[in-house]
Amino acid sequence: MLKKAFVVVVISLFCFSLGIAAEIIKLPAPQLDGGKTLMQALKERKSERSFDVKKLPANILSNMLWAACGINRPAAAKRTAPSAMNKQSIDIYVALPEGLYLYEAKTHALKPVVIQDIRALTGKQSFVAKAPVTLIYVADYKKMGNMSNDEKNFYAATDTGFISENVYLFCASEGLGTVVRGSIDKEALAKAMKLGDHQKIVLAQTVGYVKE
Amino acid sequence: MLKKAFVVVVISLFCFSLGIAAEIIKLPAPQLDGGKTLMQALKERKSERSFDVKKLPANILSNMLWAACGINRPAAAKRTAPSAMNKQSIDIYVALPEGLYLYEAKTHALKPVVIQDIRALTGKQSFVAKAPVTLIYVADYKKMGNMSNDEKNFYAATDTGFISENVYLFCASEGLGTVVRGSIDKEALAKAMKLGDHQKIVLAQTVGYVKE
Repeated sequence: MLKKAFVVVVISLFCFSLGIAAEIIKLPAPQLDGGKTLMQALKERKSERSFDVKKLPANILSNMLWAACGINRPAAAKRTAPSAMNKQSIDIYVALPEGLYLYEAKTHALKPVVIQDIRALTGKQSFVAKAPVTLIYVADYKKMGNMSNDEKNFYAATDTGFISENVYLFCASEGLGTVVRGSIDKEALAKAMKLGDHQKIVLAQTVGYVKE
Repeated sequence: MLKKAFVVVVISLFCFSLGIAAEIIKLPAPQLDGGKTLMQALKERKSERSFDVKKLPANILSNMLWAACGINRPAAAKRTAPSAMNKQSIDIYVALPEGLYLYEAKTHALKPVVIQDIRALTGKQSFVAKAPVTLIYVADYKKMGNMSNDEKNFYAATDTGFISENVYLFCASEGLGTVVRGSIDKEALAKAMKLGDHQKIVLAQTVGYVKE
């Protein structure tokens, strides 16, 4: 018992010394009263590949994840993005310098998955290792129910597209840069993310301030 | 020559008598200065399956198609929705009571394809035949270049998701109802749409006023 407590203390001190928060991060409540109009966000929607290393503040990360696929109708736990047969099978993993987190829409929180900076594994382009956030969209094939594998591949892709466009428009509204990417070594990344066989990486999307 | 002119006159009169416009419909310029904020549109994003038969005015149809996948950066002919390797391989067909049209982003116009009401062929649900507009997203596999067929299927699906979410948010901003649908008899619909073998139907999305 004492030995276990000692190990916990040592790990906690180690994490603390590295600035690592290995605990659930409760995000601030999303703010829905600011930003551009939809039409102005659409006008400014674009892909950006030049990012500053500067981190996103917690409120921006919160608003972005809610925009991406947060709960917009709490009574039915329905989301900002549609999903095939409302299966809600796409999970958003958030790769930050301090580690990999899973976005939990119901609690609007980030659950730690891997205490390691895996950003460089999310793509081949040089910017991916340094931009502050990469979202990794992962389809949980177990949640998709009675579909053929081709149908699962298809709806995993469409459902990710819906979410990714929300992130594009949020970034356009906030003046952030973003780019969605499909060219990923999915096998290596899935291993680093400790995904199960029923979980398939669909796309990755990098977000950050635009480098001047 | 006279005979040809006679045939043209007869067809024109026939179309006119049915209220059919078999010519290119130039859409009014999109209006980008109204509507809700992005965050409010996200809050109201949902799927709706109960539609009034009332038609959409031309300016709403114009704004919606621009929002979906219009040109937002004219110098580079880039669009409101991203596409894999900027191949812009998704075409939007617009099924209206008076016929099927193809949305041409460069001219912001509707080009007639079939002078026939094919709405009922776009899905099995009873509302599809009567709701005023169904968008049919079609991937042109010829435009996708050097990809495997699996990759083409994948990017056709993601790229359609991006566009469809823009339509969802536009409808949320304007108080319109919409639902995207994947369960389609694609073979029958492709035949009615006179699609080529290199064109694949991805999803259909119905839009209209919500039935009170």
